[in-house]
Amino acid sequence: MAGIYQRTLNLRAALRHLSPHSTFSSAATVRHSLVGPRSSFLPITTSQFGVCCRKLHAGADGHKLRSPAAAPDRLPFSRITQEDLDFFRKILAGRVITDPDLLESSNVDWLKYCNSRNLAVNPQGGNTGLVGGSVPVYDEIILSTALMNNILTFDSISGILTCQAGCVLENLSHYLEEKDYIMPLDLGAKGSCHIGGNVATNAGGLRLLRYGSLHGTVLGLEVVLGDGQVLDCLATLRKDNTGYDLKQLFIGSEGTLGVITAVSILCPRKPKSVNVVFLGCETFEQLLKTFQLCRGMLGEILSAYEFLDSECMRLLNTHLKLPNPISDCPFYVVIETSGSDPKHDGEKLHNFLEEAMTSSLVTDGTVATEDSKIKALWSMRERVTEALTHDGFTYKYDISLPVEQIYQLVTDMREHLGDRAKSVVGYGHVGDGNLHLNVVSPAKDPALLAAIEPFVYEWTTRCHGSISAEHGLGLKKRNYIYYSKPSQAVALMGNIKAMLDPKGILNPYKTLPDNLK
Amino acid sequence: MAGIYQRTLNLRAALRHLSPHSTFSSAATVRHSLVGPRSSFLPITTSQFGVCCRKLHAGADGHKLRSPAAAPDRLPFSRITQEDLDFFRKILAGRVITDPDLLESSNVDWLKYCNSRNLAVNPQGGNTGLVGGSVPVYDEIILSTALMNNILTFDSISGILTCQAGCVLENLSHYLEEKDYIMPLDLGAKGSCHIGGNVATNAGGLRLLRYGSLHGTVLGLEVVLGDGQVLDCLATLRKDNTGYDLKQLFIGSEGTLGVITAVSILCPRKPKSVNVVFLGCETFEQLLKTFQLCRGMLGEILSAYEFLDSECMRLLNTHLKLPNPISDCPFYVVIETSGSDPKHDGEKLHNFLEEAMTSSLVTDGTVATEDSKIKALWSMRERVTEALTHDGFTYKYDISLPVEQIYQLVTDMREHLGDRAKSVVGYGHVGDGNLHLNVVSPAKDPALLAAIEPFVYEWTTRCHGSISAEHGLGLKKRNYIYYSKPSQAVALMGNIKAMLDPKGILNPYKTLPDNLK
Repeated sequence: MAGIYQRTLNLRAALRHLSPHSTFSSAATVRHSLVGPRSSFLPITTSQFGVCCRKLHAGADGHKLRSPAAAPDRLPFSRITQEDLDFFRKILAGRVITDPDLLESSNVDWLKYCNSRNLAVNPQGGNTGLVGGSVPVYDEIILSTALMNNILTFDSISGILTCQAGCVLENLSHYLEEKDYIMPLDLGAKGSCHIGGNVATNAGGLRLLRYGSLHGTVLGLEVVLGDGQVLDCLATLRKDNTGYDLKQLFIGSEGTLGVITAVSILCPRKPKSVNVVFLGCETFEQLLKTFQLCRGMLGEILSAYEFLDSECMRLLNTHLKLPNPISDCPFYVVIETSGSDPKHDGEKLHNFLEEAMTSSLVTDGTVATEDSKIKALWSMRERVTEALTHDGFTYKYDISLPVEQIYQLVTDMREHLGDRAKSVVGYGHVGDGNLHLNVVSPAKDPALLAAIEPFVYEWTTRCHGSISAEHGLGLKKRNYIYYSKPSQAVALMGNIKAMLDPKGILNPYKTLPDNLK
Repeated sequence: MAGIYQRTLNLRAALRHLSPHSTFSSAATVRHSLVGPRSSFLPITTSQFGVCCRKLHAGADGHKLRSPAAAPDRLPFSRITQEDLDFFRKILAGRVITDPDLLESSNVDWLKYCNSRNLAVNPQGGNTGLVGGSVPVYDEIILSTALMNNILTFDSISGILTCQAGCVLENLSHYLEEKDYIMPLDLGAKGSCHIGGNVATNAGGLRLLRYGSLHGTVLGLEVVLGDGQVLDCLATLRKDNTGYDLKQLFIGSEGTLGVITAVSILCPRKPKSVNVVFLGCETFEQLLKTFQLCRGMLGEILSAYEFLDSECMRLLNTHLKLPNPISDCPFYVVIETSGSDPKHDGEKLHNFLEEAMTSSLVTDGTVATEDSKIKALWSMRERVTEALTHDGFTYKYDISLPVEQIYQLVTDMREHLGDRAKSVVGYGHVGDGNLHLNVVSPAKDPALLAAIEPFVYEWTTRCHGSISAEHGLGLKKRNYIYYSKPSQAVALMGNIKAMLDPKGILNPYKTLPDNLK
């Protein structure tokens, strides 16, 4: 019947060596063609998984995330045996790595074999997540997508890109910019994160305000299920209402339902004009009024509205020697516009700034139109995370709230903690109602942590917020899911997991709370 | 635990009388409060289901959609008994309708009772669908959302609206326009379609090019599952990565997985300037080049790029007496811009038109900036469907294709059918790669149908298109799903259906193919 085909992934594999400079690591050396009607459509339908048997010799206690509070008990997955190794050695002659020195990041398998052997698997992209979602907890096999880094197709009329999951976000951006397009998402980790990981974690980032979430821009996915079957939902169409939209299940499921191997995504045109403004406000209320004003006056060219507080600025000054580009203020805003006409964009921006200044919403500001100055202003927002790492041990929270309330949580946390915290800072995506709240301590401090949690989660729940706006739950936050989701919804998630991955081999100990196991 | 609560819908109900002018039909008369933490957040968390036991006396053969080719056998659902009627009469004193004259559209139940009795249920919004998705096939109980028509909240900073499922799209638009916002979707049926139905069918429409699909703009849903449990995913946040995004499952599932009872949706700002252009092109290739040019030159203000062919124009002239606003051409384009600055938008449009004219991509055109002329130009595109109904019996197809190929299908179909068809016309959403292909015959013609199908589906599959871009599958197209989805994906859809609605009482005979039953 038309449109029906099945592909299983077994006995065919490619090994990723951990070092990119290794003499025997190359995407080209081991490749196989997936058979199916799409092969005529996608010029390169090859798969290059890289898999690392991370802890064959390491036992179960090596993981830095394993604090007593966070780590669940190891589930009764099989231990890797000599027979398993022989199997892998047979299909991957000379490419099975068991040397502990080399095992810090790679080894190989296919999911069908792992499923039949009940071996647990940890899918991994660029490993840039912040909640322990992409690293093994015990002895799970790491399945890396790093060798699956081919761009498959790009349609310059529709702007639809298809590519393998291991493509690095920044590489895709460079590729598209030459074709007068951009990726619909951008984030600090772009230099190492993989598009497959971005989709698996439903990454948000700096352009969400303008181009929306990946649930809207991802048009298709190829996913390998726990039993090795390939689920082909790799459509390259803007509209397709034939049955349930299965790909949506995998967007944001953190590799617990399937391994994303290819992505099709709708890309916007590259703007002909980009401007960045850095402004200072006296109060958060004025910062919100400025947001309202700029939504009205900048309209369709507004592409980012980000903020940081004066504590962030102090850390940028102190640790990174980044000088404040304007005079000192309690709050700072980064506004980006991108549009198709530099003259029109400039006029809109000028009118907005004039209004913001005369109405005293804004106390100081500076504008950048050339690339280097744009980058410098953006770094005031993008490098806050880096500055924090120099300040001490950081407790990180990624909270979604109604936009009017996002800074109140920082104020309340500061008051609640008093001098127990070295600093409490707030920054994030105002336009999306997304606060990054960070509490710094000179060192790891269980007493401080006990003062922060569950205070922060309870505060968020009272405002009907989300305890993870864009970072996901991973290992670290899985048990806090009930603060943002009712038990019925969590139970249904458990049913979906059981349906798609009955043995639970895919990224165990992640996303879903322990009480569902 | 925080965030956990459960609500069941039983023993409380509201009856919708079928006539909107009926003296005993009122949203206010029967109301109940849903208990839960959200009640403090949503000022009006009430539910007003209306349900009609459509065919209590009518037997199983009354439905106009039941052609031998399309209709599956009735499944062994319970027949409604006197005891069932007594149950409904007890909880809905004086409001149970069994009079066949009144039964053309309403009656009442809650899903928990229906599930326990194995009674089939047909959720229904405005009943404006085109694939038989919202009407019963046999004696299913119609569950109407028409009385659930309250707007719940609107946040004028974030632009997030929450409302009950039965709100009519146009009413929501009027409400928002007063607050300087618009709905992110617009379609011809706006005067009667319900937002719940829009979401259940993942409606596309005229603004998708600009604001994207409902998978991106819908932020939350409240859904009643087949067993009467209320699944609360009614978040009002732009970002929420706590577990699987369950609401996505229900978007586009045509009421087969649950009944959507409330929606939260992100609304764009109302544009300050709208322009519409009507252009003529000599070839479809020129029409596509014009699309490319306008994407580049109109950029962020482009909000629609629609087309119709000369056959459509002939039908508009003949049957609706709508005169061609420009000179005769093989192809016509409707372009809409919407932006925040009338002067800038006018300049962009002027530059684009000058370029399109001087490069001979366009042979004639007219521009409208005032409301009445904008409406007149839009009606050339929106009233094609109406013109077709006057021309004869119409076989309708809603096809997604790579944009370069959308008109080739019309040409090939014309050639393939020769003089067997009265007319073969093409129009639709070029910007989305969505063709509405219509074949007209003087009367219903099985031989003609046999010439169209499976030709049209096979053609679409060869181009990796979708056989239903925005209309869904409903009853009419359920068995053609394999032309656009591999069998593994369809099997997985069946598993999801079995998980969420084990008795299969929700909208049976729809969306999924018969071989899964």
